[in-house]
Amino acid sequence: MPRRSAAAVADTRASVTETAVDRASVEGLEGLTIGRLAGEVAMRKSSLFSLFGSKQELQLATLEAAIQQFRDEVWGPVADEQPGIARLLALCDRWLAYHEREVLPGGCFLTTATIEFDARPGPLRDAVADSIDRWLGVLEREVALAIDAGELPADYEPADVAFQLNALAAAASYGFQLSRGPEVFARARRSMRRALGA
Amino acid sequence: MPRRSAAAVADTRASVTETAVDRASVEGLEGLTIGRLAGEVAMRKSSLFSLFGSKQELQLATLEAAIQQFRDEVWGPVADEQPGIARLLALCDRWLAYHEREVLPGGCFLTTATIEFDARPGPLRDAVADSIDRWLGVLEREVALAIDAGELPADYEPADVAFQLNALAAAASYGFQLSRGPEVFARARRSMRRALGA
Repeated sequence: MPRRSAAAVADTRASVTETAVDRASVEGLEGLTIGRLAGEVAMRKSSLFSLFGSKQELQLATLEAAIQQFRDEVWGPVADEQPGIARLLALCDRWLAYHEREVLPGGCFLTTATIEFDARPGPLRDAVADSIDRWLGVLEREVALAIDAGELPADYEPADVAFQLNALAAAASYGFQLSRGPEVFARARRSMRRALGA
Repeated sequence: MPRRSAAAVADTRASVTETAVDRASVEGLEGLTIGRLAGEVAMRKSSLFSLFGSKQELQLATLEAAIQQFRDEVWGPVADEQPGIARLLALCDRWLAYHEREVLPGGCFLTTATIEFDARPGPLRDAVADSIDRWLGVLEREVALAIDAGELPADYEPADVAFQLNALAAAASYGFQLSRGPEVFARARRSMRRALGA
């Protein structure tokens, strides 16, 4: 029954990477080890090794799972909104709520991974940079739609606004993680709306 | 000659913390160890230990030295500008130039330290949080001066603008560290000017 077996393997991988995403959001992707993770998910180290093959593969799978979670939690619920400013405003609210609800115990995964790998060339740094570029690209296209629809001034630079929104959401996340003061989310929400001319 | 000796000790501490600031900007404050630092500054481990007493004291002294460097490089050169919007604009330029010139090899020290300690309660987290609060306070007072002088709209919230400027400068620093693309500084400069209504 090879198909059932492949599905079972995929399920096990998904459940392991879910735990790994939580761990890595607090301790970083470098803090992940197959040995410690095996203890947390109550599996043998050798089984975990056969699922991922290497620490780097585990780290890359964990990054991918974190991005999938972000997509499901932040983009998924707003995908059907009216493209342009309506979808952007809804997206900003979902994005901040994702950090405020502490879906990840250590806050914004990509910001932590950026700080962790920015000085370490290799496949992980490339994967982090690629993920951020893709997300900034999503934001940029949405801002461009809003400009084309006349909802934002024509002299707005879409890539600048994307940079601003990303900077503000990240600052809300690490500001909250540091101070535990929830008012930073209201501050970030007002600031994102201002960046969107609202 | 106790005064000369105290001055010599202070000089040695300053030279050690200068090296420690560079190291920690890349590898984090947790990556600092008295043993490795002793090798880099060509001192005996026991001498270094007698200068700082513990790893935590070394970390706190390193954080303090990083903040002093930031103050000298960013605030110092603009302190005599006209208070309000003129000084804010000059400050933003110095701030981005500080990151662009890579005075620190690992980018923004406080952002890295925030990510590193936000989930680790203790004296270092408190010192990082306190440093950020003080810097946001400096920005906030300057924005309030600009509002009082009629240079910024009265409905601007000084703490919101301070949060925005800090978020944008940090994003320029880690964005550059990750991508090595210098255009992020021009983007951040335009974004900071927009946050300042310019």
